[in-house]
Amino acid sequence: MERIKIFDTTLRDGEQSPGASMNTEEKIKLALALERLGVDIIEAGFAAASPGDFEAISRISEAICNSTICSLARAVPKDIESAAKALEKAKLKRIHTFIATSPIHMEFKLKMQPNEVIKRAVEAVSLAKSLCEDVEFSCEDASRSDRGFLKEIAAAVIEAGAKTLNLPDTVGYRLPQELGAMIQEIKAFVGDSVILSVHCHNDLGLAVANSLAGIQNGARQLECTINGLGERAGNTALEEVVMILKTRQDIFNGLDTRINTKEIYACSKLVSDITGIRPQPNKAIVGKNAFAHESGIHQDGMLKHRETYEIMRASDIGIPENNGLVLGKHSGRAAFKDKLESMGFGEISQDDLDKAFERFKVLCDRKKEVYDEDIRSIMTEETTKIPQVFELLGLQISSCSSGVPHAAISIQKDRETRIDAAIGNGSVDAILKTIDRISGYKGVLKDYKVEAVSEGKDALAKVVVKVEFDPEKPAVIGHGLHLDTMQATARAYLGALNSYLSMRELITNKTIC
Amino acid sequence: MERIKIFDTTLRDGEQSPGASMNTEEKIKLALALERLGVDIIEAGFAAASPGDFEAISRISEAICNSTICSLARAVPKDIESAAKALEKAKLKRIHTFIATSPIHMEFKLKMQPNEVIKRAVEAVSLAKSLCEDVEFSCEDASRSDRGFLKEIAAAVIEAGAKTLNLPDTVGYRLPQELGAMIQEIKAFVGDSVILSVHCHNDLGLAVANSLAGIQNGARQLECTINGLGERAGNTALEEVVMILKTRQDIFNGLDTRINTKEIYACSKLVSDITGIRPQPNKAIVGKNAFAHESGIHQDGMLKHRETYEIMRASDIGIPENNGLVLGKHSGRAAFKDKLESMGFGEISQDDLDKAFERFKVLCDRKKEVYDEDIRSIMTEETTKIPQVFELLGLQISSCSSGVPHAAISIQKDRETRIDAAIGNGSVDAILKTIDRISGYKGVLKDYKVEAVSEGKDALAKVVVKVEFDPEKPAVIGHGLHLDTMQATARAYLGALNSYLSMRELITNKTIC
Repeated sequence: MERIKIFDTTLRDGEQSPGASMNTEEKIKLALALERLGVDIIEAGFAAASPGDFEAISRISEAICNSTICSLARAVPKDIESAAKALEKAKLKRIHTFIATSPIHMEFKLKMQPNEVIKRAVEAVSLAKSLCEDVEFSCEDASRSDRGFLKEIAAAVIEAGAKTLNLPDTVGYRLPQELGAMIQEIKAFVGDSVILSVHCHNDLGLAVANSLAGIQNGARQLECTINGLGERAGNTALEEVVMILKTRQDIFNGLDTRINTKEIYACSKLVSDITGIRPQPNKAIVGKNAFAHESGIHQDGMLKHRETYEIMRASDIGIPENNGLVLGKHSGRAAFKDKLESMGFGEISQDDLDKAFERFKVLCDRKKEVYDEDIRSIMTEETTKIPQVFELLGLQISSCSSGVPHAAISIQKDRETRIDAAIGNGSVDAILKTIDRISGYKGVLKDYKVEAVSEGKDALAKVVVKVEFDPEKPAVIGHGLHLDTMQATARAYLGALNSYLSMRELITNKTIC
Repeated sequence: MERIKIFDTTLRDGEQSPGASMNTEEKIKLALALERLGVDIIEAGFAAASPGDFEAISRISEAICNSTICSLARAVPKDIESAAKALEKAKLKRIHTFIATSPIHMEFKLKMQPNEVIKRAVEAVSLAKSLCEDVEFSCEDASRSDRGFLKEIAAAVIEAGAKTLNLPDTVGYRLPQELGAMIQEIKAFVGDSVILSVHCHNDLGLAVANSLAGIQNGARQLECTINGLGERAGNTALEEVVMILKTRQDIFNGLDTRINTKEIYACSKLVSDITGIRPQPNKAIVGKNAFAHESGIHQDGMLKHRETYEIMRASDIGIPENNGLVLGKHSGRAAFKDKLESMGFGEISQDDLDKAFERFKVLCDRKKEVYDEDIRSIMTEETTKIPQVFELLGLQISSCSSGVPHAAISIQKDRETRIDAAIGNGSVDAILKTIDRISGYKGVLKDYKVEAVSEGKDALAKVVVKVEFDPEKPAVIGHGLHLDTMQATARAYLGALNSYLSMRELITNKTIC
């Protein structure tokens, strides 16, 4: 079996999706999930981009044992040194440095001559190599670069010590046959002196097909993200390529990954819960409908013989077979803990377990049926919580179609209780304006979404807000989970405010370059 | 230039997405949008599946002039006759009949011998041909069928009069090179005696790449859907393939479609508004982030030279260049009408215009800034409205974290006003239970979603609910648009109830076969 290395960049390129910024606790939680998934390399961030990225890489380096931790770095000494420093405590580490190699990027963005670009690349790889044994080099915009020049720079960086050479389709322009031809030509040139890697963007909807073409022509590392997150239309979706390799072993015989596919669903859920970016229902593999059969003809076929319409099983990616109700108000702590383990929340601290169990019991008192999804949502919220500077104590809301919606809210800060009221255009507006009045911060709501966690009128509401508290800094995400949509809204907005306060020192706009 | 025919099946295979059922008014609205988009063939439904499908095909046939209207039909006389009847008033019409040809489908689902399958196919095509000049035949599960058998049945149905032969990858199992090889072999066999068509499913994320491989090997009709809707992980996304053909004219030189790409964005928005199924932000072409550049490096490159990171323009697919605020409370009816025309709502009746303008003025009174998206949402709601059996007059809601959420609602039915109140676990629960109490219907909430239409705390809330009023019938969708999330919730739920009542006679489970 020949191994395809899976290089996950959800924490770096994925976090570059507008609105996908994560706080440090969320990043660590996700890195642990990626380690359980069996990812070979976790690109944890871009150390020089911001103090927040640096801290996240550093803390992930401490937390992870079985995956290589990687930081991105431009081909400049300060970036490479910063990457090495952030990775100091990693058991397995990699520095990933890059420079653009296409004529358009060299001329207009870098304003450098090709020979200067090669010199800079070699210096960067050499410096990285002196700080870290495992060095990856990327030719940004490789797919629009001159092949002769790609070979020249490839030879130079391999000589300087690069162990992996990545050839990205940075703007998502290529067709599978073109991407395949590029990898084939470079593979013939470099032989086994380096591992070739592909990194494809999905602007034309071809990232997965292009990545496959890369693998079929000799690439042995695949850069990808969970749910296909990333700049613009995103990157290659990890779950799609991995499931193609598994489902089509008749074609990809002899090629294998280290991924435990049964962790795919949990990872996908975690990423969508943290970022608030939900895969569309018709997203391959992880969409809500990916394994649903709607038409009568298909349902009939499925009943007669499963393989008439099914090429994969939902259980292959870890979707629980029995997604019905699971526990009720008489379930004890042991049963609850068993349930959590079966759902992949095995390594939970006693403290987190106690808090989650408490919330579970409160939920059971008020909600007839408690589903797996309810428990998953509670757990994600509990285990990614950040320090509560402002805490919601009470909320009263009143809205009338012929009157003025208004809210009264009490909030605790530093053990002091503050209460106030405000009116609004609608209930949500009233709640957020009341919180602004109490906290003294004025947030601009960039996005607001509510979803029912499960079926039924009494389902838990999950609210995700994106709020900008400072036009100089990126917007932050907040989550709120409650049986009452308005309570969940207040919690989400306070969550965003707390996240902003805890990260204020660390978040800056990534205006490097 | 050689023409690739675009066969849109959003109204048939797309509507088979769980939760995507549309009512007749919505289907007509979408068909008109598809006609403006320049789709060659609109598959409007499956006439024999339900009276609702029959009615929709029949009314779309009356409404559309420039696209061929098509109905699906199994290879049985009753289906074909029903299709022909539904298509009676169409200016351009097609019957699309099919039967499965793979060993697994023939043995387990059809329980028929291959020669019986051929006989049935020929009979079906002959009958269809006697009723309609334009007949398409599909070999269901073609990609898992025996090539020799495919040739045999192809020769037979072409002889019987089929003008288009569709070879679907029904279960989304094939890789591009396999799909391409199948089309190449069949093309060599059939020559120019028939138009070959591809219909790919996206279970492994390869529908678009597979469709392209089909085109590169001789297919000249492409079956696809807006936003890639469809069974399970959906079908080939129309917008992706069309934009590949356009962006990569250097490769697909000589191949062309009739699509006006500037209508893509409006179509995509309409489909997501009607179905409540929103493309993920990182969806290629039509996702919210598809043209957004987040990282500092990319933004810097874009400023220096646009093509460093951009291969298409947002305006190519009709995303308005200036998406800022547009109109205010002092805008008159003429300015409002101009705005609507620039947004693609040109052919609007005076009655719809009056109603929309009235709502626009009410909105201006309460909301500081009115965006394009606000207007688009109002228009979609106004132009797809169904008869209001129950109409919301007033709503009062009160919720308190230490108390019991409760609602009081007044509703008009047959000019009679009914008022009642109910408690709930949360505000939404209280509202829906109050409506149930007043209406006498008891809905099961299958899905609940809220989105802000634009930015700002005072944004319009768009609520989508999916409700099952009768376990024997499919769930219905309801939409509500209001500045107050709770008012929007009540409107959405009543919309679902009204939709259920207006369709009750027409909707039945599609349990044919």
